[in-house]
Amino acid sequence: MNPGKDDKLVLITNDDGIYAPGLRTLLEVMEEFGKVVLISTMESMSGMSQALTVKTPLRVKLLEENDNHRIYACNGTPADSIKLAVNQLLDRKPDWVVSGINHGANASVSVLYSGTMAAAIEGCLYGIDSVGFSLNDFTRAADFSSCRKYVRIVMGTLSSEPLPQGICLNVNIPSVPESEIRGIMICRQAKGNWKEEFEKRKDPMGKTYYWLTGLFQNHEPEACDTDEWALSNNYVSVVPVSVDMTAHWYINKLKEKFNT
Amino acid sequence: MNPGKDDKLVLITNDDGIYAPGLRTLLEVMEEFGKVVLISTMESMSGMSQALTVKTPLRVKLLEENDNHRIYACNGTPADSIKLAVNQLLDRKPDWVVSGINHGANASVSVLYSGTMAAAIEGCLYGIDSVGFSLNDFTRAADFSSCRKYVRIVMGTLSSEPLPQGICLNVNIPSVPESEIRGIMICRQAKGNWKEEFEKRKDPMGKTYYWLTGLFQNHEPEACDTDEWALSNNYVSVVPVSVDMTAHWYINKLKEKFNT
Repeated sequence: MNPGKDDKLVLITNDDGIYAPGLRTLLEVMEEFGKVVLISTMESMSGMSQALTVKTPLRVKLLEENDNHRIYACNGTPADSIKLAVNQLLDRKPDWVVSGINHGANASVSVLYSGTMAAAIEGCLYGIDSVGFSLNDFTRAADFSSCRKYVRIVMGTLSSEPLPQGICLNVNIPSVPESEIRGIMICRQAKGNWKEEFEKRKDPMGKTYYWLTGLFQNHEPEACDTDEWALSNNYVSVVPVSVDMTAHWYINKLKEKFNT
Repeated sequence: MNPGKDDKLVLITNDDGIYAPGLRTLLEVMEEFGKVVLISTMESMSGMSQALTVKTPLRVKLLEENDNHRIYACNGTPADSIKLAVNQLLDRKPDWVVSGINHGANASVSVLYSGTMAAAIEGCLYGIDSVGFSLNDFTRAADFSSCRKYVRIVMGTLSSEPLPQGICLNVNIPSVPESEIRGIMICRQAKGNWKEEFEKRKDPMGKTYYWLTGLFQNHEPEACDTDEWALSNNYVSVVPVSVDMTAHWYINKLKEKFNT
């Protein structure tokens, strides 16, 4: 694969591993836009957030190459994968970082835990237009066919006008037949959290261990401008995500509190 | 340890492991405020961000208990530790989650990678007043004595008035003698990123591997309202951090772009 000067160079990854159907769907659609470099892990990296590998060495292996794409396997997190690709594997800065399509939604506060969104945020920190896509279905049998249209629309829109510095997109697609999707809704991250219910078990030695499970709770189910609302009403949600986590509106009040 | 009804219950953790001097300093200062439950890992968990452990079981062990504190070791990430403590180890919701004192600054975009700040964000998601403290010195010989005063000031201020929902504090302390610290500065997260320089090596089998290293670049060194500026000018930086990552100001522009 030799991307020409006028070819778009697209870097893609995910957090469900290299064999995930969602990633394969994304690869096929992104090849319509340009040359694609795919980097992912052999195993799933769900819930890895923006974690970096600092205590073990990173390894990467070229698995496949043809005229349209190059596929690498890596042993790091999604954030590691983007860093490695941008710094070591690519001859030039990619035009886009596209992550997903995740098996399961990454709406509301899941953006904080998501490896898929971490990869998009990582691309954004390098000044690259970046998008994370997720389908609201975490099962292996998830049907990604309705996603194709919306990946095309979102990336087509970015083709004509890039995003501002420090902003990437979090796109969640409802898991319904394409005909039932009511379109795209630009929205904000819903307020909510995960209510954890740890499963407490005993191992064969009689020692206690825990499995993390959980149930998402939307704290504002009535608000109709959130990603959670969009998804439950069969809209594709698009949230602009900022790498700046400052609560700007609270700075002056905090100054009063601290008398500074 | 039996916290009375009027005792403050403080949950503390870090990402440098249970033997880190910064954590021990925090334990001592927080005992001035109430009863303390400490949970941390045997080894360092730096750079783990908001990662959750979903593929391996979590284990936790009570190491020490006296009238003032209880100390647990856990094998999970900082975010796991807070979830486990809140859901399984504590009889009631803690009044505060306090994380750190981290060995090394967590200013600017480091908030996205930091396990210390992830623990504070985790507490905040549970509706608990939460603060992450970091000292701008990652060496083992770091001197945490000047931190005590500022942990007292910050937590004392929170005692009288809690934080709004969805906001926690990111506090970074310069690594200079206490007499040289010029006070507290409320500020915003500086724009910047990490410029990575992977070290490429060969293992004894002749195979390539990489170590992630990096150098932080401040993209706005002149701006004097950022955490990076505060630290370099010997101020303690306090940034209000929002769990809502939406770029609200960009929502209307994005609607125009997508004609929605």
